[in-house]
Amino acid sequence: MFLKTFFDHALAQHSYMVGCQQTGEAAVIDPSRNVDEYFDVAEEEELTITRVLETHIHADYVSGSREMAERASATIYYSREGEGDPSGEYNWDKSLSTHGLRDGDKIQMGKVSLDVLHTPGHTPEHISFILTDGAASDKPIGMFTGDFLFVGDVGRPDLLEKAVGVQDSAKKGAKQMFASLKKIADMDPSLQIWPGHGAGSACGKSLGAVPTSSLGYELKTNPALQHETEESFVDFLLAEQPTPPAYFAVMKRINKTGPQLLRDAKSAYRYGANVKKIDELLRRDVTVIDARSREAYAQSHIPGTINIPFDSTFANWMGSLVSYEKPVFFIAEPHTFDEIKHAMNAIGLDQTEGFFSPMILDQYEAAYGTSDYPVHTPKTAYEKQRSNELNIVDVREEYEYEKLHVDGAYNMVMNDISERHTELPSGPIAVYCGSGARSAIAASLLKEKGFDVRNIKGGFMRWRNEELPTSS
Amino acid sequence: MFLKTFFDHALAQHSYMVGCQQTGEAAVIDPSRNVDEYFDVAEEEELTITRVLETHIHADYVSGSREMAERASATIYYSREGEGDPSGEYNWDKSLSTHGLRDGDKIQMGKVSLDVLHTPGHTPEHISFILTDGAASDKPIGMFTGDFLFVGDVGRPDLLEKAVGVQDSAKKGAKQMFASLKKIADMDPSLQIWPGHGAGSACGKSLGAVPTSSLGYELKTNPALQHETEESFVDFLLAEQPTPPAYFAVMKRINKTGPQLLRDAKSAYRYGANVKKIDELLRRDVTVIDARSREAYAQSHIPGTINIPFDSTFANWMGSLVSYEKPVFFIAEPHTFDEIKHAMNAIGLDQTEGFFSPMILDQYEAAYGTSDYPVHTPKTAYEKQRSNELNIVDVREEYEYEKLHVDGAYNMVMNDISERHTELPSGPIAVYCGSGARSAIAASLLKEKGFDVRNIKGGFMRWRNEELPTSS
Amino acid sequence: MFLKTFFDHALAQHSYMVGCQQTGEAAVIDPSRNVDEYFDVAEEEELTITRVLETHIHADYVSGSREMAERASATIYYSREGEGDPSGEYNWDKSLSTHGLRDGDKIQMGKVSLDVLHTPGHTPEHISFILTDGAASDKPIGMFTGDFLFVGDVGRPDLLEKAVGVQDSAKKGAKQMFASLKKIADMDPSLQIWPGHGAGSACGKSLGAVPTSSLGYELKTNPALQHETEESFVDFLLAEQPTPPAYFAVMKRINKTGPQLLRDAKSAYRYGANVKKIDELLRRDVTVIDARSREAYAQSHIPGTINIPFDSTFANWMGSLVSYEKPVFFIAEPHTFDEIKHAMNAIGLDQTEGFFSPMILDQYEAAYGTSDYPVHTPKTAYEKQRSNELNIVDVREEYEYEKLHVDGAYNMVMNDISERHTELPSGPIAVYCGSGARSAIAASLLKEKGFDVRNIKGGFMRWRNEELPTSS
Amino acid sequence: MFLKTFFDHALAQHSYMVGCQQTGEAAVIDPSRNVDEYFDVAEEEELTITRVLETHIHADYVSGSREMAERASATIYYSREGEGDPSGEYNWDKSLSTHGLRDGDKIQMGKVSLDVLHTPGHTPEHISFILTDGAASDKPIGMFTGDFLFVGDVGRPDLLEKAVGVQDSAKKGAKQMFASLKKIADMDPSLQIWPGHGAGSACGKSLGAVPTSSLGYELKTNPALQHETEESFVDFLLAEQPTPPAYFAVMKRINKTGPQLLRDAKSAYRYGANVKKIDELLRRDVTVIDARSREAYAQSHIPGTINIPFDSTFANWMGSLVSYEKPVFFIAEPHTFDEIKHAMNAIGLDQTEGFFSPMILDQYEAAYGTSDYPVHTPKTAYEKQRSNELNIVDVREEYEYEKLHVDGAYNMVMNDISERHTELPSGPIAVYCGSGARSAIAASLLKEKGFDVRNIKGGFMRWRNEELPTSS
Repeated sequence: MFLKTFFDHALAQHSYMVGCQQTGEAAVIDPSRNVDEYFDVAEEEELTITRVLETHIHADYVSGSREMAERASATIYYSREGEGDPSGEYNWDKSLSTHGLRDGDKIQMGKVSLDVLHTPGHTPEHISFILTDGAASDKPIGMFTGDFLFVGDVGRPDLLEKAVGVQDSAKKGAKQMFASLKKIADMDPSLQIWPGHGAGSACGKSLGAVPTSSLGYELKTNPALQHETEESFVDFLLAEQPTPPAYFAVMKRINKTGPQLLRDAKSAYRYGANVKKIDELLRRDVTVIDARSREAYAQSHIPGTINIPFDSTFANWMGSLVSYEKPVFFIAEPHTFDEIKHAMNAIGLDQTEGFFSPMILDQYEAAYGTSDYPVHTPKTAYEKQRSNELNIVDVREEYEYEKLHVDGAYNMVMNDISERHTELPSGPIAVYCGSGARSAIAASLLKEKGFDVRNIKGGFMRWRNEELPTSS
Repeated sequence: MFLKTFFDHALAQHSYMVGCQQTGEAAVIDPSRNVDEYFDVAEEEELTITRVLETHIHADYVSGSREMAERASATIYYSREGEGDPSGEYNWDKSLSTHGLRDGDKIQMGKVSLDVLHTPGHTPEHISFILTDGAASDKPIGMFTGDFLFVGDVGRPDLLEKAVGVQDSAKKGAKQMFASLKKIADMDPSLQIWPGHGAGSACGKSLGAVPTSSLGYELKTNPALQHETEESFVDFLLAEQPTPPAYFAVMKRINKTGPQLLRDAKSAYRYGANVKKIDELLRRDVTVIDARSREAYAQSHIPGTINIPFDSTFANWMGSLVSYEKPVFFIAEPHTFDEIKHAMNAIGLDQTEGFFSPMILDQYEAAYGTSDYPVHTPKTAYEKQRSNELNIVDVREEYEYEKLHVDGAYNMVMNDISERHTELPSGPIAVYCGSGARSAIAASLLKEKGFDVRNIKGGFMRWRNEELPTSS
Repeated sequence: MFLKTFFDHALAQHSYMVGCQQTGEAAVIDPSRNVDEYFDVAEEEELTITRVLETHIHADYVSGSREMAERASATIYYSREGEGDPSGEYNWDKSLSTHGLRDGDKIQMGKVSLDVLHTPGHTPEHISFILTDGAASDKPIGMFTGDFLFVGDVGRPDLLEKAVGVQDSAKKGAKQMFASLKKIADMDPSLQIWPGHGAGSACGKSLGAVPTSSLGYELKTNPALQHETEESFVDFLLAEQPTPPAYFAVMKRINKTGPQLLRDAKSAYRYGANVKKIDELLRRDVTVIDARSREAYAQSHIPGTINIPFDSTFANWMGSLVSYEKPVFFIAEPHTFDEIKHAMNAIGLDQTEGFFSPMILDQYEAAYGTSDYPVHTPKTAYEKQRSNELNIVDVREEYEYEKLHVDGAYNMVMNDISERHTELPSGPIAVYCGSGARSAIAASLLKEKGFDVRNIKGGFMRWRNEELPTSS
Repeated sequence: MFLKTFFDHALAQHSYMVGCQQTGEAAVIDPSRNVDEYFDVAEEEELTITRVLETHIHADYVSGSREMAERASATIYYSREGEGDPSGEYNWDKSLSTHGLRDGDKIQMGKVSLDVLHTPGHTPEHISFILTDGAASDKPIGMFTGDFLFVGDVGRPDLLEKAVGVQDSAKKGAKQMFASLKKIADMDPSLQIWPGHGAGSACGKSLGAVPTSSLGYELKTNPALQHETEESFVDFLLAEQPTPPAYFAVMKRINKTGPQLLRDAKSAYRYGANVKKIDELLRRDVTVIDARSREAYAQSHIPGTINIPFDSTFANWMGSLVSYEKPVFFIAEPHTFDEIKHAMNAIGLDQTEGFFSPMILDQYEAAYGTSDYPVHTPKTAYEKQRSNELNIVDVREEYEYEKLHVDGAYNMVMNDISERHTELPSGPIAVYCGSGARSAIAASLLKEKGFDVRNIKGGFMRWRNEELPTSS
């Protein structure tokens, strides 16, 4: 048997290839949409990809199943357990070769077999695949758990309700999750656990940075598996889940049918530092993201651009804050263009149309002048707040704000800014978050809306270190 | 003034960027369609590309002018000297910003100026640009000559007639060329000459491998400039011009309006070594090119593929032998995929849809079996010919064949094979060309048509070295 | 806790990074010598590498511990359990910061701890590290088993005897291995197992292509763990182990002190296709490896070169067949130069001095002429053998030969050719192996020694498929 | 004939390859030390490099002649015209194959010939090569002029005096230059001119951004060729030459014998963001260059580092300000490591030992704290100067300062800072240059020396735009 894990950094997402060397077949489980890598590995291992397996309808990224199926002339294996439930039902493009699965089904591929286990909770149709390497033993070796069971966590049951608006589904999902966990409690503790996500994903609430686990270890240590009653489990699971990114609803919709093929998506252009072009674009109804660091953006930026620095949370904020309906252009370091395109493919922002390089700042400055905003230390911000020169806005999650916040600060969660910014006080405002990262994005959004804005360096962490006044 | 030469290997094509540092503007002359490089250089030099200049309607490659104009929001400057002549008239897409030029016009860009000189001959509308760096002197420094004057050669006047079918245009063009050359004979001999092509292009008949020249040097040494009478010049120019590649007509048609934008062209997929996919493709109406070496192809190839090795003549043969109407797929080394795509863009083969890697040969062999053809030394081929075991076919140009050929060989020029192969004798045939390169392509084409074919190693060069019988 | 696996393809070798986000420290377990990757990941994860851990004195690759320790100013943690046994004792360079470990020791790194378990068998000093993520639980999560326990296999106990010449150590090692396995038999079956090698390594006899396991799964399925008595286990373990590569003794010697730092190794030059240079080199006492495919080499090669194709067994054959005392040069595809250098670093062939590209064949052919050797199908070889035109030589392992071989074939194992080739019959010989891969290398070695050699296409596999005579 | 220009951006340096396709030989003129590119082109063109030609002993970069000669087993052709003059005499390593040239000598290479013309002035031994393509004509086509004649300029005659300390050599060189220019005044004006440098080099005083010229154009437009008397020419030539970079003396010394081979130079390590390592290094006698932007450095830097941003003047300032005796380490973006190493090779800073990435700033900040310095607008600086809060220092060239400077500013040329900084007033100082670029480097140097320093944003250009007080 051949087994390999793939990790997509932009999404903190795991996918897997499993193959039988005897028949030369391979299957990919939960592929991301950037599928070249699967072909490269299959080639190296002299395997032909013939099957694509989906654990569930993903909410956080565009599934690569359709892309894989088309390229490899492969068959998609998907769950039919959600049939009848609009939020759990696939609706594949008719051109594809597909095969629906139900609990108890088995996929046989040479000596390798995958048993289907219905494990709802994160979503109603969610299935897991129990892997057996028949060449070594008839006992299973591990389980591909998708967004059911993570290392140290379980999948969130509240996404459908919060991101997609399926009423009362959070609680229902939490109960299903409890039942699903019961199903595996008595299985062999030496089973390996191969989850769909690692640290950094918004699909669980506290994903660790350990890629794999065993069932026995999870039973002993995973906080979600330490509850005896359904009630205690449900309370635990629904507490303190962060706001899901706004694009999760879009992903759900796309993944039911499969996204457009990448070959049909527009290519993105490189525009170097052409000021004539960016000037023309900024007059049109497009989004221009400045992906440089927050420090560079604060010092000098082109009016009308939004600052979403290209770091580990980039895909998340892009999906949440950027319209899926308008063309998107970037200002970014040229050596990051490919990674950015890759990340945009992954979340289905197929309108990514072009890239400018940071040199454009100098040239734009010379031609039209640029803009900036001040950065305050907590102490300066505090003094100005005290002397009524500015208001302070907390852009963290509500539950973070409720625990403890800057004394006198307003709370407005990032994802709410575009719709609720008018509720903020007029006059100068200073924004903060945990560390100063999220609030830099917020500052650029608010500047765009016409606010006289500044960012607080170091965020709430530094505010507390400097022992400035807080309240809860 | 800033001046830089760009060289596209796939086409042996020169393009140029000229800029004025004072105003920050730049113009690109005869851009190829892979325009990223122009943006990179402009960025580095802190220039903004605002103009795109065309010397003429190109026949050998897809002009990048439309692509440049769209990306840079720049204006296209083109010749109106061919108006009224269907073969010399542009027909730009209405969405573009364009500016028509006539003999005597001047383009001013800060301190830099470009004077337009009508220099027909290669094509009726052809213009050259005389460059003056006003910051240094009011005397011109050089001339962008497009396909008018090359280093050691002049543009071919017979392409319109031979490739596009404009009757009697070859002789007419030759006469115009004579007049155009007269125009420059008395100009300052110290003018630099910056031509549109270098060695390897099919736009002239004997282009050298020296990239630039001076007018004085060309006047003294260029064979085309040593003729006193029009008659002698015309005779000289029309003699021994090789068959133009079949795709030149397509290029002409595309370049009159500008090709589709690359962002709208389908992307090409990587398929690794997926045998299921190639098997499916070969049942459909597509072209699969095996771009491996001729030795590798002769040893083992997938039936139904055509062998056009990826070397310096690749773009030429692709354009000549492959249908512009069908999707094209390649078997090639992965590290050449980008270069191949680049070359296909350059000649407008926008149907390039996918790439397989050479590992597929092993996997296809295992699954379905592969094919091969024998390679003979000249001596073996001669013996088999003498004993009537096979016929020999010369696939070189007619004028090459007429000078000297293998005794008893048929002549069938490469470009004629697909339409005239039925004229060849049935039974085993061995093909040869000058060195064995062209004939390898011919062998794969003939095999595809059902012939029992072999290639002659070393071609006519080796045949003669071994002193085997020839005739003229 | 942070945990990441690294896989070196050239060696089928796993190394691991484990870190504590709270203190920002990380440790690398069994690093390969190409250490850039560890720094990249540490940077991304905002960790500082402060410790390097060694499970044992490696025989199959050059340990990167010294390189890591020097670069990162880190401390090396190594086993002192082999003290007093010359084959199990480290002798680190005095300049390094080192820390000796014994069974029962614990390494604490923030919340992460690693418990040392002495697990001799593969080597006397071998230790394993049991990992506990204190942030999640006080129960261990898994074990880094080095070359003690693999997925589906255990480490070979016979390397010291066969490769290094430590008498009677194979049996002694096998007994120790039995005892070591006993030690872990009662540990928690849900412990994850992270071994030092995957499929393709010569450190175990049947390594699978599954990267990780759990202790419970191994206890149930690993053939080596199914023996009740020491005797049965020892018999099982010592049977049918292939000849270890000849360079293992060199690795052992180097790894006791740590290899030279890569910064002090000579860089390799690129020579393009410079025939003047290769001609000069071939007159000196150097090794020139032609890393092209066996088909290309058979057709045309430069006399004096040896053919070791750049595929998955490349590092193995390079280490086994090439002198560590002479400069080494390669003919290879330019896009593989870095990978080849990487592989040579990994096995300590620091005399890698230069690379030529395959274009040199054409140029050498023109200047001096090239050489070739015939390739026979099994049928042709059989007919020529029957008519006494050639002798057939089997270059497989002795135990393979003994099971079944070509009727009338001599056996000479690959690694013996350079010393024992004079024992072969004079006159034409044809070599074969399992599939034709190994025997291509053998053919080039024998050609170099002056034999009139040919290779048998498809090897013994095809010989049997064609039902030609065999004996056992 | 084959001719190709190579341009090294780091040095604004041109080198050339000329070859004869008939004999397959090629020569490289004034190679840079990064020679891979020459081999790549020779391979592509199927040429073998057999000769290396030097126009003179270079002062601004390390010649690649020795490297080329060793790698290609080629012969070095160099000038013997400086024999007897210690500053103009080569002293090649005995192991090399060399061939001395004198005025009037001819190098024949197949049909291509190069005539040697002694053209002293920049240096006493300087020769130019007149190229004739015998296949096309017996008339010369152009001239490789090294640092004798540039496009729009001539070589500086004062480097030996200013950089190397050869007394009175500037005037003597200027006279020789006048005579050398006379020599070519009557040659064919249509000769092409291929110089040794383009825009950005410190070898001439006003090099343009046009890569090539013709003799006729230079005679008409080059300011240096418009002088009738030697006296007027000498006055013109010696006026306003900027201070030569301090490393030119080192280059001269190295180039007389040829530098060490790159294969013998230490490799540079990548250290990621390892704070433990940089902390250890900063305690040792090494140089750590922070190559990030001046804005980033001003905001946050590691104490003890010097800021030389990686832009077009990087190699120049590195050579001038950094010791050739100490190991050098860099903090720089990972995608620039190769280019930086390349540039350091080019100027012979072979002690380049390692690279850290910018992420180290965050980690160093957390572990030890970082440093910064203020940036003032001209207006703020002026106000603080007026109220005696700080002194202003002009780090431009003396002749720039003398023309016009900030009222009340001290002048201390960049290259003098390390030796003369004690002459500066104690107390806060603000530095400026033309645009703020040079002064950022100066600020980091002065900070290192213990000054309380700040940089003036926009430099003298902005000072004047804001109409603040100046004097001359």
